[in-house]
Amino acid sequence: MSTLTELYEPIAVHLERVRAVVDETIGSNAPAVDRLCRHMGRLRGKMLRPVLLLLAGQACGEVREEHYTLAAVVEIVHMASLVHDDVLDEADVRRGEVTVNRMTTNEMAVILGDFLISRAFLLCSRIGCRETREIVGSAAASACEGELVQLSRRGDWRLTEQEYLTIIEAKTAALMAASCELGAIQSGADARTVRSLRDYGRSFGVAFQILDDVLDIAGRQEQEGKSLGSDARKGKLTLPMIHHLAVATNGSAERLLAYLKAPEGQDRGRLRQWLEETDSLDYARRLARERALSAVRSLEPLPAGPARAQLRKMARFIVSRPGHSDCL
Amino acid sequence: MSTLTELYEPIAVHLERVRAVVDETIGSNAPAVDRLCRHMGRLRGKMLRPVLLLLAGQACGEVREEHYTLAAVVEIVHMASLVHDDVLDEADVRRGEVTVNRMTTNEMAVILGDFLISRAFLLCSRIGCRETREIVGSAAASACEGELVQLSRRGDWRLTEQEYLTIIEAKTAALMAASCELGAIQSGADARTVRSLRDYGRSFGVAFQILDDVLDIAGRQEQEGKSLGSDARKGKLTLPMIHHLAVATNGSAERLLAYLKAPEGQDRGRLRQWLEETDSLDYARRLARERALSAVRSLEPLPAGPARAQLRKMARFIVSRPGHSDCL
Repeated sequence: MSTLTELYEPIAVHLERVRAVVDETIGSNAPAVDRLCRHMGRLRGKMLRPVLLLLAGQACGEVREEHYTLAAVVEIVHMASLVHDDVLDEADVRRGEVTVNRMTTNEMAVILGDFLISRAFLLCSRIGCRETREIVGSAAASACEGELVQLSRRGDWRLTEQEYLTIIEAKTAALMAASCELGAIQSGADARTVRSLRDYGRSFGVAFQILDDVLDIAGRQEQEGKSLGSDARKGKLTLPMIHHLAVATNGSAERLLAYLKAPEGQDRGRLRQWLEETDSLDYARRLARERALSAVRSLEPLPAGPARAQLRKMARFIVSRPGHSDCL
Repeated sequence: MSTLTELYEPIAVHLERVRAVVDETIGSNAPAVDRLCRHMGRLRGKMLRPVLLLLAGQACGEVREEHYTLAAVVEIVHMASLVHDDVLDEADVRRGEVTVNRMTTNEMAVILGDFLISRAFLLCSRIGCRETREIVGSAAASACEGELVQLSRRGDWRLTEQEYLTIIEAKTAALMAASCELGAIQSGADARTVRSLRDYGRSFGVAFQILDDVLDIAGRQEQEGKSLGSDARKGKLTLPMIHHLAVATNGSAERLLAYLKAPEGQDRGRLRQWLEETDSLDYARRLARERALSAVRSLEPLPAGPARAQLRKMARFIVSRPGHSDCL
């Protein structure tokens, strides 16, 4: 199995350029603000969205200056959402570093997120092409809508698989689809190719989020570098739980509901065991794998080449992340 | 003294158009999200920033379609900041209506604010002129920076008057200055006129915020339609308190510090009385009035006309708001 470092190697030089644009964009003349931005820089992590944007760009042509700008924009929009997620989850740790809300206050973290969004849009406002700017704005708004719908359905145990998929498509997949689309457009791809890459990004995003939700139940805390088990604690139904509730017999659905309704007594090991009894974790992993395969199929109309090969590998990689026993 | 309705009368038709753009921009196909957006629409209130933008536009020429767009953009950016402010202040009521954080949860309110910002920028991304888009992005980022610096100085009793003014210039005046600047630019004003209107907006914003901070201490709860006294409760020094600490003798500075350090026992009446002993509330009102006069002076290079007269009235009006005994 490939590692992330291996996967990123062919675009490492470009990623460095993106990092420089991010750092430059989020700096502040006010020392108190700048200190927080530097800290955010350290929490940055995988830079998955810039990677998708750059690879989509390479798959369709040359990587140019505007790719770096847009890759920085989508990364900063994502960073802002992480800061706010950590406030909502009352998280202490992200990627092994203390979160902004814990380092300072919830108040500072909320406004820091707003600052990052504003700076991302300021950077984006320099892009000359209106369609490009609108893709960024729409994807950011869509991510918020998905999150809002998910929040509004907390504690609603009737959430269906289809509703869950609609939510994560908006919440997670829209920004990844946009990243791929932006990369392709900036390389001058034709409409059909742009559509293929957007479809790839959307399927990739859905697969990614399903797996992320599986890891929240079955992942290893130290490997993920963040607190796990928060979905069940917050009454947020994810695919394995939805599947379990749909197929469980002999009172085990009631057992799960009782568990979800009493967050203080929750134990992730127990939840995992119940979900394994109905194959619900594997069901979710299978669905993620299907979406990843569908992402790979979206690439078929593209000319063969190293960037396309890399995008295929990426799709396979995300459904074989640590905590997930199967490899594609 | 004029009322707001009288002041707004000459641009009432234009304001209706702006309201329509705002409503259209913040709607959502997801019912749970749309319900919140409609509620936000009711909290909208004074629409001061659109009014400044439209009047600046009129003072320099014709009001056009793009004025409505930009007025909606600045208003939505402001609405987003109100939603987040209410989370930070744990406010229950705004303009007599229940706040979003109280109606739903802090989580929903944080993400709703993000959604509004994203939609504002999406709308702004349709504007063809890069300079215009950058003014919006810079002002939004500046507002966050101001707020972050203010948060980072909470409980710091050494905050100086100059530092306070720098904070409120970023936090409040930048978006008002931008509103005036945008109105002028869209009407094709020359660089000197644009600068005059930006200066007007900046001075107007500083005067407005000083008065707002005075009202948090000396205003009447039922008139303001929001909870007051939160600055002292949160350890946020504002101009009257800074002045008091600087001039107080015979242990009265220590008395105020002890008061600020024990938020649970605070009583706004007592605070007001102490600040009146050193004329600190009047000192702040005087400074606000000077800034309002400076705003009026900024308009001198503009040709005389009804819009310029209206802007003068606006500057005089904000420093004679209810809760403030003197009128300019």
